[in-house]
Amino acid sequence: MEGRRAVRELLRAGNRRVRSVWMVDGNDDAEVLDDIERLAASRNIRVRRVDRARLALEARTEAPQGVLARAEPVSPADLDVLLADPHAFLVALDGVTDPGNLGAVLRVAATAGVTGVIVPKHRSALLTPAAVKAAAGAVEHVPIVPVAGIPAALERAARAGVWTVGLDAEGNGDVFDLPVADRPIVLVLGAEGRGLARLTRERVDLLAGIPMPGPLDSLNVATAAAVVCFEVVRRRSGAAGPTDA
Amino acid sequence: MEGRRAVRELLRAGNRRVRSVWMVDGNDDAEVLDDIERLAASRNIRVRRVDRARLALEARTEAPQGVLARAEPVSPADLDVLLADPHAFLVALDGVTDPGNLGAVLRVAATAGVTGVIVPKHRSALLTPAAVKAAAGAVEHVPIVPVAGIPAALERAARAGVWTVGLDAEGNGDVFDLPVADRPIVLVLGAEGRGLARLTRERVDLLAGIPMPGPLDSLNVATAAAVVCFEVVRRRSGAAGPTDA
Repeated sequence: MEGRRAVRELLRAGNRRVRSVWMVDGNDDAEVLDDIERLAASRNIRVRRVDRARLALEARTEAPQGVLARAEPVSPADLDVLLADPHAFLVALDGVTDPGNLGAVLRVAATAGVTGVIVPKHRSALLTPAAVKAAAGAVEHVPIVPVAGIPAALERAARAGVWTVGLDAEGNGDVFDLPVADRPIVLVLGAEGRGLARLTRERVDLLAGIPMPGPLDSLNVATAAAVVCFEVVRRRSGAAGPTDA
Repeated sequence: MEGRRAVRELLRAGNRRVRSVWMVDGNDDAEVLDDIERLAASRNIRVRRVDRARLALEARTEAPQGVLARAEPVSPADLDVLLADPHAFLVALDGVTDPGNLGAVLRVAATAGVTGVIVPKHRSALLTPAAVKAAAGAVEHVPIVPVAGIPAALERAARAGVWTVGLDAEGNGDVFDLPVADRPIVLVLGAEGRGLARLTRERVDLLAGIPMPGPLDSLNVATAAAVVCFEVVRRRSGAAGPTDA
């Protein structure tokens, strides 16, 4: 895995076995690089100094930021365990195929306190080095649940008493007026352009859109995730709006 | 300029003279490409068919998405005119140097109905092809104000009776509890990592942070912009929270 924030969080979290860290010799003196060296030393992980060309040869992303680590893969989380949490705050991605977008959504999720991210195993973005780098360390913290399909996962949520909300511009609700923000919830986000799959739209309990008063009417999936996840944070923080009254 | 959404909005808005549009022969059949052809035809703009290699040679971004247009530059907007708007909803970027981030913020701004984006002329990202592409058409709609420096622009805002709010984790306020969301406002966003410059922090009327209950404590500048801009949208939409009462 690559990227400064991603590698720092890998070492900080300490959830995965790390085989080695590679750093470019003569990197700039960013604080995050000092953190990486210190954390690696304290965990007895060898830091290998290489030149920029050698690192580029090894890297899988275009801008590894002078840092690379070899670690065991992220363990998948269990959906039923996550659904049983009385404070469940899950995000499901329906047809997001761009690894950078997957990573950016994971970063938003880890910042907002999302308790798990549900990702289909097929026809969707995987945890590639580009996704892990964009996630900026989020993969160490947010449980990730690979599922065969989103509609089946939504059915399991319904059986567990968890509300499912699809983000959709055609929805008759508005994310700023969600009646279930403080209940156990799965927020379902679709791919930019195509939106939610038909079966997903049919399975969710509610469809809600982000009001967009400006001249453009679409957001990137990570910025849409930020708006809706932090609306849930706001509602759960006790800054209770009139919709809670 | 490059990118499908960017070129479609360029033609749709019709604010700038467009010299020509280049498209790759044998592109996929996305709806946005049909829109581009139709809009170009209706405005008598020549569409030149080229092969993928020829377009790549001309392109300045890594993924021009098979479309490129030559247009006159975006005209700068006037700060005093924007500050005089009784519904002023401005965003100022303090030290954002990545063109992709600038573009992504512009896209959020155009979706949220931001009335102008203030960008320093020096030491900050410019409207490069990468920025314009990430903006997905937003540059056609959102007035962009180049300024010599953010602190001086904030002084002009204060003289015009416009409130200035710096987004800062150290702020003692919380963006979900902004007392001035429905007043004329400038939201100031700093660079990821470094945050707001010292002089900017001193000049703003208020500092407010986004509560981040999760294990990570930083957002990308575009996702942070999404959270705070759509909080203003929510507050102005009349979904009046208890903070308005």
